[in-house]
Amino acid sequence: MGGGAALRITWVTVIERLSHLFLRTLRDDPADAEVISHKLLVRAGYVRRVAPGVYSWLPLGLRTLRRIEDIVREEMNAIGGQEILLPALLPREPYEKSNRWTEYGPSLFRVKDRKGADMLLGPTHEELFTLTVQGEYSSYKDLPATLYQIQTKYRDEERPRAGILRGREFVMKDSYSFDVDDAGLDRSYEAHRGAYQRIFDRLGVDYVIVKATSGAMGGSASEEFLAVAPAGEDTFVRSTGGDYAANVEAVTTPAPEALDYAATPEAVVHDTPDATTIDALVEWANAADLGRTVTGADTLKCVMVKVTEPGKEPELVGIGVPGDREVDMKRLEASFEPATVELLDEEDFKNNPFLVKGYIGPRGLERNEVRFLVDPRIVMGTAWISGADEPNRHVVDLVCGRDFTPSGTIEAAEVREGDPAPDGSGTLTLQRGIEIGHIFQLGRKYTDAFGFDVLGEDGKPARVTMGSYGIGVSRLMAVLAEQRADGKGLSWPAAAAPFDVHVVIANKDEEAARGAEELAEAFDEAGLQVLFDDRKASPGVKFKDSELVGMPWVVVVGRGWSEGTVELRERATGEVTQVPVDGAADAIIATLRG
Amino acid sequence: MGGGAALRITWVTVIERLSHLFLRTLRDDPADAEVISHKLLVRAGYVRRVAPGVYSWLPLGLRTLRRIEDIVREEMNAIGGQEILLPALLPREPYEKSNRWTEYGPSLFRVKDRKGADMLLGPTHEELFTLTVQGEYSSYKDLPATLYQIQTKYRDEERPRAGILRGREFVMKDSYSFDVDDAGLDRSYEAHRGAYQRIFDRLGVDYVIVKATSGAMGGSASEEFLAVAPAGEDTFVRSTGGDYAANVEAVTTPAPEALDYAATPEAVVHDTPDATTIDALVEWANAADLGRTVTGADTLKCVMVKVTEPGKEPELVGIGVPGDREVDMKRLEASFEPATVELLDEEDFKNNPFLVKGYIGPRGLERNEVRFLVDPRIVMGTAWISGADEPNRHVVDLVCGRDFTPSGTIEAAEVREGDPAPDGSGTLTLQRGIEIGHIFQLGRKYTDAFGFDVLGEDGKPARVTMGSYGIGVSRLMAVLAEQRADGKGLSWPAAAAPFDVHVVIANKDEEAARGAEELAEAFDEAGLQVLFDDRKASPGVKFKDSELVGMPWVVVVGRGWSEGTVELRERATGEVTQVPVDGAADAIIATLRG
Repeated sequence: MGGGAALRITWVTVIERLSHLFLRTLRDDPADAEVISHKLLVRAGYVRRVAPGVYSWLPLGLRTLRRIEDIVREEMNAIGGQEILLPALLPREPYEKSNRWTEYGPSLFRVKDRKGADMLLGPTHEELFTLTVQGEYSSYKDLPATLYQIQTKYRDEERPRAGILRGREFVMKDSYSFDVDDAGLDRSYEAHRGAYQRIFDRLGVDYVIVKATSGAMGGSASEEFLAVAPAGEDTFVRSTGGDYAANVEAVTTPAPEALDYAATPEAVVHDTPDATTIDALVEWANAADLGRTVTGADTLKCVMVKVTEPGKEPELVGIGVPGDREVDMKRLEASFEPATVELLDEEDFKNNPFLVKGYIGPRGLERNEVRFLVDPRIVMGTAWISGADEPNRHVVDLVCGRDFTPSGTIEAAEVREGDPAPDGSGTLTLQRGIEIGHIFQLGRKYTDAFGFDVLGEDGKPARVTMGSYGIGVSRLMAVLAEQRADGKGLSWPAAAAPFDVHVVIANKDEEAARGAEELAEAFDEAGLQVLFDDRKASPGVKFKDSELVGMPWVVVVGRGWSEGTVELRERATGEVTQVPVDGAADAIIATLRG
Repeated sequence: MGGGAALRITWVTVIERLSHLFLRTLRDDPADAEVISHKLLVRAGYVRRVAPGVYSWLPLGLRTLRRIEDIVREEMNAIGGQEILLPALLPREPYEKSNRWTEYGPSLFRVKDRKGADMLLGPTHEELFTLTVQGEYSSYKDLPATLYQIQTKYRDEERPRAGILRGREFVMKDSYSFDVDDAGLDRSYEAHRGAYQRIFDRLGVDYVIVKATSGAMGGSASEEFLAVAPAGEDTFVRSTGGDYAANVEAVTTPAPEALDYAATPEAVVHDTPDATTIDALVEWANAADLGRTVTGADTLKCVMVKVTEPGKEPELVGIGVPGDREVDMKRLEASFEPATVELLDEEDFKNNPFLVKGYIGPRGLERNEVRFLVDPRIVMGTAWISGADEPNRHVVDLVCGRDFTPSGTIEAAEVREGDPAPDGSGTLTLQRGIEIGHIFQLGRKYTDAFGFDVLGEDGKPARVTMGSYGIGVSRLMAVLAEQRADGKGLSWPAAAAPFDVHVVIANKDEEAARGAEELAEAFDEAGLQVLFDDRKASPGVKFKDSELVGMPWVVVVGRGWSEGTVELRERATGEVTQVPVDGAADAIIATLRG
């Protein structure tokens, strides 16, 4: 990734005194808070709400945010990333060219300036990074290049929620790689993947990497980093027996082997009055004398949709899934992307009288030349009970490959706990996660839009290929709170804590106070960030606050002082150690440094 | 200012190689650039234009910006300031309450969110800081407090100009002090004044501190820090013989002593056909036999305006100035603030038939009970030639205090080079400056708007008083460029340079290249920021670039290498020293550290 310039930022601080710090902890959860990170970040005085999805960062919050940013920055620099800063207020034109001015819809904050020009608040910066690099670079010799920024971004979320977990103004690291060929893009992608793992590992996040798409765009074209958390909005699957994890949208269904249908009887149409649901159909089938027990999985459900490719007329498409599974619209949409999908409305059924509601079957679709895409379980030789394209009639023993030929397969059926993992490693479990990172091989979408070529090694123009990579920096802070909090409050990992150590005077004795002060100074001199509770409050109040604000280590100078000990508490474990006053500073510094 | 928490940030870097750095210098000035800072910051690859008044920060620009921010941060922390970060996207309500939603007019970027709620992009944050502190603090014991942020701000300037000198998206440090009484506000104000001086001194800015208002709100209620620069938009005055400096709006006119008018003849009305201008009137007067030579300064010009106090009906007001001076609308507006001022239109003259255009005089105004404010030079006993409130007639020897009594004085007349300095230290010169800082005793404007009281020491509610203090951080960078650039390029002060030293390999000899590399490493190990020109370009190109990008020191490893010397060039002075290779690193480090 190039020569590797690296700007590291280290922090030096003098002792921060609670008697001075702009911090007031709250006893009660905010009324609008549902998830623990939101409750605690507000109660512990890290953030304050200004508008829906818009927050202020108070001193502790800002320090935590900056520490996370610094880790991101270090790892980005380590892979040769170069930091720049683009504006948040952007002109419409580039987003018009990429079509995202329209595509973003109401999620985009739009602004008109005093001259009536359309502008927007950047939700992400593919367009501007492309133009920025295009403005400076013109030869294959300039590439590869990775540029990034850590910047405030804007998205007008329909339902901003959970405090800074999903804000409308938020801090993001977005980077973009520029390569002259696909192999270069692969390398840039892998470098980011590694950097992201190091970032999340250093912060101690519990996360999985999931494939974000089913692979239509290439094996590793897109992966998401999901922090495991019950409060998460994303559902993902994980194999019980291996590393496999994926977005529900990305799960692929292992296709069974084709069956020999030589022994399957001929397809026969039956009267099935009022069997317009799968349940009713199964009930009819088991009452009829078919010689076997029938379940929903033996029926074939045909769901009709309209698929619209960008710039084209809608196309009628049939989706076939085993009757015991619903069509998962998100999976369906992901399969058709960038085309959009809608279910049929009454008007559509009127216009297509061959579609007999409740009785649609593959043969009717085939006769009317409607594209019919089926779940991968519907393989050659499998026999199904399906609609017969006439009111109150179904067909039994309709064999795939004999009685109908699907136009292709599609991932559209719902994924269920217990389904086999696509890699054969076990069965799938469903879990909830929060997206903290996303890496994506964009390819040439934006360089095509802006005509970004460089001079190739062969002397001919070469179209540049791009990757786009994001980390939700402010969200990461909420995730750390979410994953590590307990009933008493926040609990930061050492790498992201606003202070390394929290020194509490828990004794009115002046000598103890002086001792605490000396300890704080020793920690400071050793380069540690020190939060110093020098307030005139009761030890109880101070202990509660120290647990709420969640520094990784708390040093209590209290009753033990006269007996020659101070207390060292580890926030995450609750473990308490008595440290002899004599040599306490050195001993504690050694413990903190692990 | 409290216990003084201080977060200092120090930078550590490995060597930045020009073969890798995202930097392409330009040979030509950008077409839209008029001032030198704009030209050079673009040519040297520090910034790039994205939209009018909206710029991207490339690596060199971002580093410079961050270094300036760090100096601001250090000095703000040193006076007990606490850093927080408020959103840029803000709800309308608080700005409605302070009346600024309306007052800002078209300078405010307004946004509607998807639910139709009015929002805005913060131009400055008085409202939000007031609410933020009000949310946490409730007692006099919590005060004084100073909070600040370094943040991206938005103003829809009518004429964004000069690159980052006046942008529509820009970086600002804004701080706010909260005190329980006026004495506290004075202390907070003075602390900021000192911090600002230290910041600008450390950066080596050539600046003056000017009074920003004429003092109606108290002596030191508002001062501006102006960087002296011919490209500046602000005109200020400076005394030839002392420290006095002020905004033109803030200049006060020394009032002459009152005159004894016993010997002045009675006022007499004369026919003055067609003397509707001061020039014509002076010509008439010198042709008439008045027994003295008359100049414009002997005539009294009455300018009619409408003054509108917020929430009130417009009031007709006469402004009297010596006829040889124009009314300076900016000074007039500043004198009436927060009321607004307009000149009369035809309609107004129709509605007030006693106003005879070209012949308005003090006596007509007095008869019609119109408020009449005069320039401080129009003192008791001075005699004037003025309109006689009849067409084609003027009155001579109209004595102030005898024939008319002004309602009061006003600072509205234009200020001229050579006018006496108000402090008696000399005469005034007019110069141009760029506003880089502003400190302002807000008082209770915002705490009144939001009803922000704390419990006073006497147990009663005390209304909090505020100061507001701003530094244009991104503008400061342009100012440094503007003040220090020469024909060859930029020239940064050591305190703000993106790199401390620029090492250039100017020799194809491999040993020299290795030597340069070793020097760069030694500088890096000594904690210096090193820009390393390891490109395969000609020495000429490299030298030109090194002058253009403007690091304070350039080390050239070139032809001298074989004879045992390297060259040390000081950018600002152009001075070149030959340093023996043996011990070069230590010698150069010592020189750089002064």
